Amino acid sequence: MLKTRAIVSAIALAGSISVASAWDALPTKAPAPANNPTTAEKVELGRILYHDPRLSSTGTVSCASCHNTMLGGEDNRPNSMGVHGQTGGRSAPTVWNAAFNEVQFWDGRAASLEAQAAGPVTNPIEMGMKSWDDVVARLEKIEGYPALFNAAFGNDAISEDKATKAIAAYERTLITPNSPYDKYAKGDKKALTAQQIRGLNKAVEIGCVNCHSGPAFNGPGTFQKFPVIDNAYLEKQYSLSADKGLYEVTGKSGDENKFKVPTLRNVALTAPYFHNGSVSSLEKAVKIMAKVQLGKKLSKADTEDIVAFLNALTGEFPKQTMPTLPGTPGSSFEYK
Amino acid sequence: MLKTRAIVSAIALAGSISVASAWDALPTKAPAPANNPTTAEKVELGRILYHDPRLSSTGTVSCASCHNTMLGGEDNRPNSMGVHGQTGGRSAPTVWNAAFNEVQFWDGRAASLEAQAAGPVTNPIEMGMKSWDDVVARLEKIEGYPALFNAAFGNDAISEDKATKAIAAYERTLITPNSPYDKYAKGDKKALTAQQIRGLNKAVEIGCVNCHSGPAFNGPGTFQKFPVIDNAYLEKQYSLSADKGLYEVTGKSGDENKFKVPTLRNVALTAPYFHNGSVSSLEKAVKIMAKVQLGKKLSKADTEDIVAFLNALTGEFPKQTMPTLPGTPGSSFEYK
Repeated sequence: MLKTRAIVSAIALAGSISVASAWDALPTKAPAPANNPTTAEKVELGRILYHDPRLSSTGTVSCASCHNTMLGGEDNRPNSMGVHGQTGGRSAPTVWNAAFNEVQFWDGRAASLEAQAAGPVTNPIEMGMKSWDDVVARLEKIEGYPALFNAAFGNDAISEDKATKAIAAYERTLITPNSPYDKYAKGDKKALTAQQIRGLNKAVEIGCVNCHSGPAFNGPGTFQKFPVIDNAYLEKQYSLSADKGLYEVTGKSGDENKFKVPTLRNVALTAPYFHNGSVSSLEKAVKIMAKVQLGKKLSKADTEDIVAFLNALTGEFPKQTMPTLPGTPGSSFEYK
Repeated sequence: MLKTRAIVSAIALAGSISVASAWDALPTKAPAPANNPTTAEKVELGRILYHDPRLSSTGTVSCASCHNTMLGGEDNRPNSMGVHGQTGGRSAPTVWNAAFNEVQFWDGRAASLEAQAAGPVTNPIEMGMKSWDDVVARLEKIEGYPALFNAAFGNDAISEDKATKAIAAYERTLITPNSPYDKYAKGDKKALTAQQIRGLNKAVEIGCVNCHSGPAFNGPGTFQKFPVIDNAYLEKQYSLSADKGLYEVTGKSGDENKFKVPTLRNVALTAPYFHNGSVSSLEKAVKIMAKVQLGKKLSKADTEDIVAFLNALTGEFPKQTMPTLPGTPGSSFEYK
């Protein structure tokens, strides 16, 4: 069904080569939920918590370890490496522009950045803390955190709710505007090369944009099935359908192999690709997507054009100050 | 012999309570070797390399992972956690003010910051790269590094020599001036509390300063034996003499259990303590040092005073910009 929809829409869209400029450029501010308005103090606290490895059982893994904002917002590994060198089955999604996802995690099991932030901290193979009570107990022992919570929330009591709100507020500032595509969409027709424009039109023509359009190229449609079309050869190489995605959360028939549509923003910087990180290059990823989502075999030239266009979605990374983490003078935690 | 020297000097020094102000405040610039003058471009490249986890086999461990400049320049662990969760026998020394050490590593086996920087990258339990040739091959594949090397060194060829020079140049900027002690030494007599002044005088009186004086509190004397005095009770708890230190490098009789005298700058932020990270609190560390180095049993009050003084050695941490690491558009490395 998706295939049919894709083809119909591609035909509809392919007529106009100016369709791209109809998509908005990336907003420079992300909307915040009513119960967690973004403030400078909350962002500052969140920035500190996000980079604090003491939120992990070993004291070695922070949010930034796997969602590295010095890189493309993740770790360029097939799957992330948590405490004690453990790895899971999924590839870390980028934190850049995650504020524009409707849901978080590959299986979309978190409805907000706040809910997402709580997860990895107590995941035994990620940050390995036994409970958020243990995290709060640690934070209370770190000089400086109570004052930072007070500045952000008006009182110095530390809680999971506040910590995850602060981290989410910080993440809402992680936006990468002014990619060549954004400049093009705003009217600078020289911002894309001829090859990138060809790639953009090809992406419209074959239907990539049916699921990857809008300012963050991650919709419309929160979830999509992947792969749509069975391909034994690719399955053998990349195990694309082993992970059941949304179904593993809901257990509902029809949810099998459904995944959150990932943003294409900065996709050139987030290899390897797909939920299981099984595909090493963007070129391969584009070819496989065309094959198993749209039933198309792309030529080498078309693939290269689309890759060139995807490189035009790499934005400008805001300059960040490195946080100075508050200390525990004269002592440290007993890391396991 | 050290014990005798310590006592003699302590008596000589203890007469004057103004001795402390005779020690220089921490310099705000570190001297650079003739073959590696510090330049802004080199520091910038070094800052980027220092934070780049792609210098490790797994892509997860950077210099900053264990020598974290967001914290006290290390990781607050007894021993650091390298690739695949491996740990060694020694505690990571702080990188803050390491430029003022005469030698590097606990056993002093590196004569310079440049030589030190080369070591952990190819240590199998630290960053795990097979060779610097492999590191250079990776750096050559990362877009942006050749230009950064060109800016720093006048040509874009990448080498171990240049990479370690750049990292060392960056590390020479990691200086923490203006601790309460520095302000006191410069004449602000209110910069230390009454307890901190008592602690300072006690440290002079009992002889701590025989090995921990000068601007970085890490000399005179590059190496010292530790422990000097056998103590079966403490040995059983903390295995202080199991690691033979300098002897493990030289094999020379007389070098057994000799270690580089560590700086006391920011010592409050670098728990747990000693070469093997076996002692969890600064208070315990002070008591043990008095016992096994100076043969003194410190009272609770004197210990607390010295700890208060040591807290006055916590300096101001310079604001740093978080580097944006250059990328590998469309691909990533095969991490092991």
